[in-house]
Amino acid sequence: MITGPGLLFVVSGPSGAGKDTLVDALRERSPRLHYSVSATTRDPRAGEREGEHYFFLTREDFERRRNAGGFLEWREYNGNLYGTPRDYVIGTLHQGYDLIMKPEVNGALAVKAAFADAVLIFLVPDRLSHLRDRLLARRTETNEEIARRLEIAHEEMKFIPNFDYLVINEQGQSEQAVRDLQAILQAERFRIHRYSDPWLKNVELT
Amino acid sequence: MITGPGLLFVVSGPSGAGKDTLVDALRERSPRLHYSVSATTRDPRAGEREGEHYFFLTREDFERRRNAGGFLEWREYNGNLYGTPRDYVIGTLHQGYDLIMKPEVNGALAVKAAFADAVLIFLVPDRLSHLRDRLLARRTETNEEIARRLEIAHEEMKFIPNFDYLVINEQGQSEQAVRDLQAILQAERFRIHRYSDPWLKNVELT
Repeated sequence: MITGPGLLFVVSGPSGAGKDTLVDALRERSPRLHYSVSATTRDPRAGEREGEHYFFLTREDFERRRNAGGFLEWREYNGNLYGTPRDYVIGTLHQGYDLIMKPEVNGALAVKAAFADAVLIFLVPDRLSHLRDRLLARRTETNEEIARRLEIAHEEMKFIPNFDYLVINEQGQSEQAVRDLQAILQAERFRIHRYSDPWLKNVELT
Repeated sequence: MITGPGLLFVVSGPSGAGKDTLVDALRERSPRLHYSVSATTRDPRAGEREGEHYFFLTREDFERRRNAGGFLEWREYNGNLYGTPRDYVIGTLHQGYDLIMKPEVNGALAVKAAFADAVLIFLVPDRLSHLRDRLLARRTETNEEIARRLEIAHEEMKFIPNFDYLVINEQGQSEQAVRDLQAILQAERFRIHRYSDPWLKNVELT
């Protein structure tokens, strides 16, 4: 067993690519993999627990931390602030847990800029037309919203070269996509730069 | 399914690290993975078939090809020349097969220099003392040869940073090491630079 700090995996891609389902399946199979907890300024909903679902902060507190560089990425959504607390991520990785998060593409790029060791995985469907089908099927968006999401998807795909991996979630083959993601999570541990500090701390050289 | 050219995997590391056993186990599990066939100037032994065990060449032929850059790596051993034919490797990869080879560390570095797309995996035992045990157990070397091999192992390990991955073959845990190698073979297919020509040839962008 290699021990040492865990790894930060960032799964992103266009809305409707299947991130939620795949990441849930991955977490079920990987006891060492935790879902990264975000901070937010919105009020807790019934049943939401501090530190488990979110870290709940006042807006003042959030902005103070944000201005001090306390978030790997942050965004405003529906009038509330959301962010990934740097100390929490670093602390959890140093306990030996892997973390996974699924921000939007902008957020993924911000995480990589703030934490170069993060492993960025872009998830796409095998045909962009499937995005439309999935967005229609979940019936949570209007036709205009769906058209807008597809436009955004086209824009987002321009950033694929900034990611480390591209995984294609083929229609009806999500089990294969989960296995592909599992292989990436396992293989990343053996990449040579992971051993650099010191590069062979777990091998006895005598 | 992503199709396209196969990948070249190069497993190296000190003698006694367990390369042969692990690579054999990998090949049994991976129908798409072929063992790279070397060229040699030595005579065929009983049962050895041209193009399956080796490509048998005259010394003149070998040297002519070598001087024309026809080998990804080559070496002389016991008065015979051995080498990895470039055309054979490229041709097999373009047929969609993955190739695996297990040259010495020098050879692995030569392959990377000649073919930057090769994936280099360094295999070590969890303790170098286990190398001695394994070399003793196989009873093919004298004590002096074993001492010399351990010296070479120390030298070889200095080149670990030139490899892409480091896999530790823990004593009694070779099944884990095979799975680690399998994960690397699978994950490498999704690395972003594999898609660069063009970067998304199997995804329909409409």
